Amino acid sequence: MRRTWKLNEADLEALAIGAAILGTGGGGNPYLGKLRARALLRQGYEIRVLPFDALEDEDVIVSVGGIGAPVVGIEKIEKGDECYRAMRALEAYTGYRVTALIPAEIGGSNSIEPLIAAASADLPVVDADGMGRAFPEVQMCTYFIYGARPYPAALADEKGNTVILGKVQDMYWLEKLARTVAVDMGAAAGFALPPMRGEEIRRTAVPYTLTQALNLGRAVLEARARRENPIESVLKVTNGVLLFVGKVVDVQRRIERGFARGWVRIEGFEAFRGSSLVIDIQNENLVARRDGKVVATVPDLITVLDLETAEPITTETVRYGFRVAVVGLPAHPRLKTPQALEVVGPRAFGYDLDYRPLKGEV
Amino acid sequence: MRRTWKLNEADLEALAIGAAILGTGGGGNPYLGKLRARALLRQGYEIRVLPFDALEDEDVIVSVGGIGAPVVGIEKIEKGDECYRAMRALEAYTGYRVTALIPAEIGGSNSIEPLIAAASADLPVVDADGMGRAFPEVQMCTYFIYGARPYPAALADEKGNTVILGKVQDMYWLEKLARTVAVDMGAAAGFALPPMRGEEIRRTAVPYTLTQALNLGRAVLEARARRENPIESVLKVTNGVLLFVGKVVDVQRRIERGFARGWVRIEGFEAFRGSSLVIDIQNENLVARRDGKVVATVPDLITVLDLETAEPITTETVRYGFRVAVVGLPAHPRLKTPQALEVVGPRAFGYDLDYRPLKGEV
Repeated sequence: MRRTWKLNEADLEALAIGAAILGTGGGGNPYLGKLRARALLRQGYEIRVLPFDALEDEDVIVSVGGIGAPVVGIEKIEKGDECYRAMRALEAYTGYRVTALIPAEIGGSNSIEPLIAAASADLPVVDADGMGRAFPEVQMCTYFIYGARPYPAALADEKGNTVILGKVQDMYWLEKLARTVAVDMGAAAGFALPPMRGEEIRRTAVPYTLTQALNLGRAVLEARARRENPIESVLKVTNGVLLFVGKVVDVQRRIERGFARGWVRIEGFEAFRGSSLVIDIQNENLVARRDGKVVATVPDLITVLDLETAEPITTETVRYGFRVAVVGLPAHPRLKTPQALEVVGPRAFGYDLDYRPLKGEV
Repeated sequence: MRRTWKLNEADLEALAIGAAILGTGGGGNPYLGKLRARALLRQGYEIRVLPFDALEDEDVIVSVGGIGAPVVGIEKIEKGDECYRAMRALEAYTGYRVTALIPAEIGGSNSIEPLIAAASADLPVVDADGMGRAFPEVQMCTYFIYGARPYPAALADEKGNTVILGKVQDMYWLEKLARTVAVDMGAAAGFALPPMRGEEIRRTAVPYTLTQALNLGRAVLEARARRENPIESVLKVTNGVLLFVGKVVDVQRRIERGFARGWVRIEGFEAFRGSSLVIDIQNENLVARRDGKVVATVPDLITVLDLETAEPITTETVRYGFRVAVVGLPAHPRLKTPQALEVVGPRAFGYDLDYRPLKGEV
């Protein structure tokens, strides 16, 4: 038996909160996934976590997650085994025997999908992911940024359709073809990325992000229980920066190709009175400008939290009148190399500005 | 060695004309395919045809063709090996060794694509197809109408992308997923349908349609050479009906989801003076109404021919001023069973009318 540790029901509660904060406004709501994972635990399935430093070179790791529009995922509830079947289809196609799963992204609902698939397959989940947050497109995985082959991959839907992307030119074609198939499948499908070896994961993944999400969620839950300020707990655990405190006064949002695009404007109070913050959103919160001056950019995490509870507020649910704290959490160094910034920096999202580190970041 | 016969360069010329007539206005232009097939013959490749009655139960047959928008195919020239690579991807996925190819449709450019793939793979092509004409969508193949399993199938493009449709719910999902992937691939891709056994082909295919297309093309070429009326030759070889003779006076055509939709109006002359014919088109010519009265409907073939040369005129190229004969060619009985009419009859294309046989059809 390998060196693993188990997740219990309380861990799922904490993970869901932490993952939503790391979702940085997007990534989908982990709530339904949490309920499904909890149901599996109660049926006797185990969710085992493989520490990053316990990876072996010969491990065969598949990264899974839901692909589609988060807006759709809320109403079109997954059957629950989409990621599992996508992974099995990939095993059948390649002839490989998968030894562990890993999240494609730790932010939002995709933090929990791999746990469900792994529990169903009696496999462990690696304590790491490919984004260290949520991003809207699959080429933004560090796996591909650092050279993992972008094929073969597989998609499965709740109706029983399975599609294998046998060969794709590059990671952008992986995204393009997978996205179209997912839209056909009803804008919500399970997605299994190309099998990677253990040494490849060690070289390309963002490490220990399951632990990070758990610690983050636990910190919030504990602060709430102790009637302490949970926003401060979030900043402490993540080494984050308080960007703004205020009231949401305007939201512009439209759906384009399944993506939520627009911006949110917040009028400051407390220390921020007389000032306003505008956050540009493309599924996730991407750029924050205070009185016109950029104070945070992707890939750093910009998260909007309820001022009282630190409950993260997604770009789909943010509304006029919400009283919020906006925090900036530094992205992992693997997301901030020149190589990574070409794919996940502000310019990759169409902004004419360079990445700048958070002010006060250590 | 199996009982096969070979196609030569002159056969390719005849086949291209016959296939364009059976394209019934759609199916794409066989011209480029003919040039590629001829180039292969000149390089020493062989195009061998397997007679329908030489099929063996154990044969493993894959039907291939181009998928996309014919309008695009004219300008975005195929690399030429798309169907071949789609077939090889399917072999690799299934582990089957393909013993012969077969056209998905005999009408238009897809009559020649399988010959190119087969010559490249040194395999014969079965003298039969899945439509007996051209149709716009893959569920309209008799293979699926008569129960062939609609998966797995494969698509390949000129850029090196390969997609396997590992499992699909039904033939409509095969069409839906393949179409979207093909659009992503640039609206032109090679498509390999699920492997079928010889006995399955015997039970489901439209037999001897390569021969029919060849005979049709030869009849036109011979009539032209002898300065006889090639329209009459077409009618004789196909047991067809002359529906109309006149001048094209109006064309309405738009592109929707890659399909050409609209109608063509023709004012009569000779015996048809004072009368007008309107043909509804959806890639192919689907319904012909003379002075408001239906005279021919899908699945029977409605083909517009140049009045002098019997050169078929496609729905993409038909224009004001063309002097044309419109002929109705009876579809094969396998397209006219109640089971088939549900998929390829007028109602399947959204018309509120039943199929009616051609007047005077024997």
